This record gives sequence, C-alpha cells and structure tokens, in this order.
Amino acid sequence: MINTILLVGMIIFAISSVIFFFFKKSERMNSAFLVSFFTLASYVLMWGGSFVAESANGQPIYWTRWLFYAISCSLLMLEISKVKGIKATGRVTELIFLNVFVMGTGALAAVSSGVLKWLFFVLSSIAYVIQIGMVLKQKAKESNWINTYIYLGWTGFPVVFFLAPTGIGLFGTAVALGLYLLLDVYTKIVFNIQLKE
Amino acid sequence: MINTILLVGMIIFAISSVIFFFFKKSERMNSAFLVSFFTLASYVLMWGGSFVAESANGQPIYWTRWLFYAISCSLLMLEISKVKGIKATGRVTELIFLNVFVMGTGALAAVSSGVLKWLFFVLSSIAYVIQIGMVLKQKAKESNWINTYIYLGWTGFPVVFFLAPTGIGLFGTAVALGLYLLLDVYTKIVFNIQLKE
Amino acid sequence: MINTILLVGMIIFAISSVIFFFFKKSERMNSAFLVSFFTLASYVLMWGGSFVAESANGQPIYWTRWLFYAISCSLLMLEISKVKGIKATGRVTELIFLNVFVMGTGALAAVSSGVLKWLFFVLSSIAYVIQIGMVLKQKAKESNWINTYIYLGWTGFPVVFFLAPTGIGLFGTAVALGLYLLLDVYTKIVFNIQLKE
Repeated sequence: MINTILLVGMIIFAISSVIFFFFKKSERMNSAFLVSFFTLASYVLMWGGSFVAESANGQPIYWTRWLFYAISCSLLMLEISKVKGIKATGRVTELIFLNVFVMGTGALAAVSSGVLKWLFFVLSSIAYVIQIGMVLKQKAKESNWINTYIYLGWTGFPVVFFLAPTGIGLFGTAVALGLYLLLDVYTKIVFNIQLKE
Repeated sequence: MINTILLVGMIIFAISSVIFFFFKKSERMNSAFLVSFFTLASYVLMWGGSFVAESANGQPIYWTRWLFYAISCSLLMLEISKVKGIKATGRVTELIFLNVFVMGTGALAAVSSGVLKWLFFVLSSIAYVIQIGMVLKQKAKESNWINTYIYLGWTGFPVVFFLAPTGIGLFGTAVALGLYLLLDVYTKIVFNIQLKE
Repeated sequence: MINTILLVGMIIFAISSVIFFFFKKSERMNSAFLVSFFTLASYVLMWGGSFVAESANGQPIYWTRWLFYAISCSLLMLEISKVKGIKATGRVTELIFLNVFVMGTGALAAVSSGVLKWLFFVLSSIAYVIQIGMVLKQKAKESNWINTYIYLGWTGFPVVFFLAPTGIGLFGTAVALGLYLLLDVYTKIVFNIQLKE
C-alpha cells in the first residue's frame, strides 16, 4: 500500500514536471517546474526505501520529505512573496530562513522520540506560525485565494504530522502518505496552475 | 554537568528568542530573533544527545553545533555587512560562502581524527582569517565595537575548539560547552542588543 | 593508487587556492579562490576515507564529491551568469536550484543501486540538460569559449559517472578519480584563468 501511494506520487509529479516545463506561459512557470521536479525526486527517494526511520510502534517514518520541502517550499515562498508584493530582500530572506527552520526541525521531530520530538515539533510550529503570519498580514490584490491556500494547504502538513506515527499515531503511515500526497498536489500543482492564470 | 549546561543554554536562548521577537524596535530585530531561535534549536538537539561523536579520549563531541552556526552566523554576517556598509552583492555572497566553509570544515574537523582533523582545522582557520579580514578592512562609523566583538567573540570559538577534546584536549567537553555558551551569549545576544541601540 | 590521485588533487587545489588568492586582478578572483578552496576541502575529505560507500562490485564510491560540487558549481554558475549577461535574479536563482538538484540527485545516484540508481541518474541528467540549455541559449560576446568549456568540461562528469563503478563499471574507481581530477582542473582552474584575461 505504502509503495503504491509513493509510486502514484512519482507518476503525478513526473507528469506535472513535464507539463509545467513545456506549457509555460511566463517566467513564473520555471519555478512551478522546479517545485514539481524536486517533489518528484523526493518521492523517488521515499519509494527507494533508504533513509527511513521507525516510529515507537514500528511504523516507517519518511523523514527525508521535510528536507526536500526545505528547498521546494523556499521556491514556493519566493513565488508567494512575489504575488503578495513582499519586495524587501531582507524580508524575503527571513521567510526563506524561517522555512528552512520549519522543515529542518520538522525532520528532527520526525526522527526523534519522547520529549525531544515534541520540543522540535513545538519549535517548528512556532516558526511556521510566525512565517505564515508574516505572509498573511501582507495585503495584496490577489491576497484572498493565497490566504485560503495557506490555511488549507500548508497548515495541513503539521496537522497530518501530529496525527500520524510521527506524532500521536492516530492513523498509520499509509494514511499519512495518502494525505501528504493530496496536500502536495494541492500546494505544489493546483497552486501553480492558479498562479498561472 | 553537560546536560545542565545545555539546559541552561536552551533556557537562555528561549528567553532571548521571546524578547527579540516581541520587543523589536526595527526591521533588524527579526534577524536577532532568528539567530536566537536557530541557536535554541541547536541546544535542543545537543541536549537530546543524538548525533554526538566521541573523541579519542572518550569525550562526547557535539559536532552538530557547527552546522547550525553555518546558518545562524550567515544571518549575523548579513547584519555585520549592513553595519559595515558592505553593499556589493558579490562581496556579501563571498562572506556567506566563506562562513559555510568555516563551519562545514569545522564540523568535519570535529568528527575526524589524526592528520585529517588538523587538515580540516587549518582549512577552517584559513577561511576564517580571510573572512574576518574582509570584514575588518572595511571602514565604517560603527566600526570599532564590531571589530572588538569579532576579535573577542568570534575568534573565541576556534580557540575553544583547539583546547577542547575536539583539539588537544586541555580541558573536557563540559568546560568547552560552558565556554561556548558564554561566547554564544556574547556573539548572538549581547551583539544584537548593541546593534539595536 | 587511489590515495595518490587524491593527494595529487589536494596539492593541485592547494596551489591553485594560494595563487588565486594572492594574484587576483579583480573582484572575480575571490570566487576563483573559493571554488579552488572548496574543491581542496573535498579532496581532503575523500583522501581521509570516511563517508565512502561501496559499489555492487566492491569498488569505493566517493559520493561526498557531489555535495561539494553543489556549492562550488553554484559559485561557477554565478560567474558564468555574469559572463553570459544573465542578470535577472529569478533566472540566476533557478540556475542555482537546478545545480543543487543535479548534484544532490547525483550523490543519491552514487549511493543507490538498481532501478533507484538509474532513476536518480536520469533525473540528474534531465536537470543538467535543462540547466546548460538555459546557459547555452543565452547569447553573449564571450559566449563561444564558455560553450566549449561547458560541452567538454561539465558534460564530462556525468559521462565518467556513467562509465565508472557508480554506473556500468567499465573502468574502476582509480581511473574515474583520475578523469574527475582532469575535469576538475579544467573546469575549476583553467576556466578561472581564462575568465581572468
């Protein structure tokens, strides 16, 4: 089941990479391609099955996902900054460093256990709240749909993390991977299609 | 003893993160917060006790510290460049790459032994001398205290590295962690308070 | 034999680091120094013999090389962008992310085996073709020699990767290291001397 989900992820992001590469209408599309291509590589690595940790109850933990997000979501953050009209280099740099913090401590939370796991989870969540706070308070014409996108899409990841074997273990890794895939499609493909219009 | 020092480090940088986040007087403060927040995460990871190597004489080597410095000191370098009036993007980029080199080879020196350790230590030190040479030769109004800060603060790190179990082992890891904590407070908290005024 | 080649690499890049540092005629030389210095550190690490994987037929795989290229070739990419007159920040950012992708998936291809290896090799190659496509289509006065440099120099790396034990294993690791060294000298030293003139 896990392998099937990861294979579906590979196929989806292989297709979106090809489409974003060839059917670009503007400069912007290259970023959409890069985000899809990094996500494809992430799915290939997870499907390969190396670099996988194990949770306390024996479920596989695909922690490498968060390191790829450190890169792909930095690219998304650059796009969002552009749409939101955040132009100050210092501000954009802060958003990128915050993103690296969120994803880096996320990976550490995924491979840690006990108190340490929750410390990293809390640190990652605080950085995330600050990060999206900086984005949301920025008013822009195209603002509304971007805010929805962040509320529903980006925030879904820490929620799944919390409920999955990386957190309280309400459901198993297979369900978590399915939900992450839906979120990946929404935040990395649907988002970039909307951006295109 | 080691755990107590690391716990104290966690508490100090948790407090400084909160203070820098809420009591900011300008744009600059966000960078101060980020530096403290990355350092907090670094102390949490060291306190957790994973990713720790061992020296030839059986002392624990907390090598992850240097990877976090690759990020936090790059942020400090951006601040210092601003104060020093280093505006050319190419020059700032070089300072960041030099910083990544210094900290990366520092981490490699920490986990290596024998000739290899000293080769990395020498490479790291050369890059450090070049890096601060570039900063110090830049004249600026606020120049004097920044130079003192770099001489006393930044240079303290390779000195402790050399004397600690990562180097000749004149003292143990507990003493090294205490000294690093003092240096961290000076270079990442006191510095940013001075910058604020 | 392997150790001798790596030692020769260390000596060559130590000398080129010193020369590029002291005999610089312009700003540009600092980048040339940094590229040589990162490559020196890479050879020191390979010579040290840690972080070495093993191929299916028992040959050592020096995968760390590709992580250092993620940094040094990003610096080269900044130089090439300057010569080629690629000034848009977004475009340069894309070239850097592509370079990190090429080298990151290259490292993953080096340590993987079977289908997974070839998936990463294909992904890395696609990103490489896109990357140099972006560079080559950019017309510039100094364009001709840069194109030759990329065709002969940069493209040599994936070819050696394919033929070496990281790929089909036509020759052993010693031959691969010798060829990589020649390519390193051409793309990181000869290139920067030509750039100087």
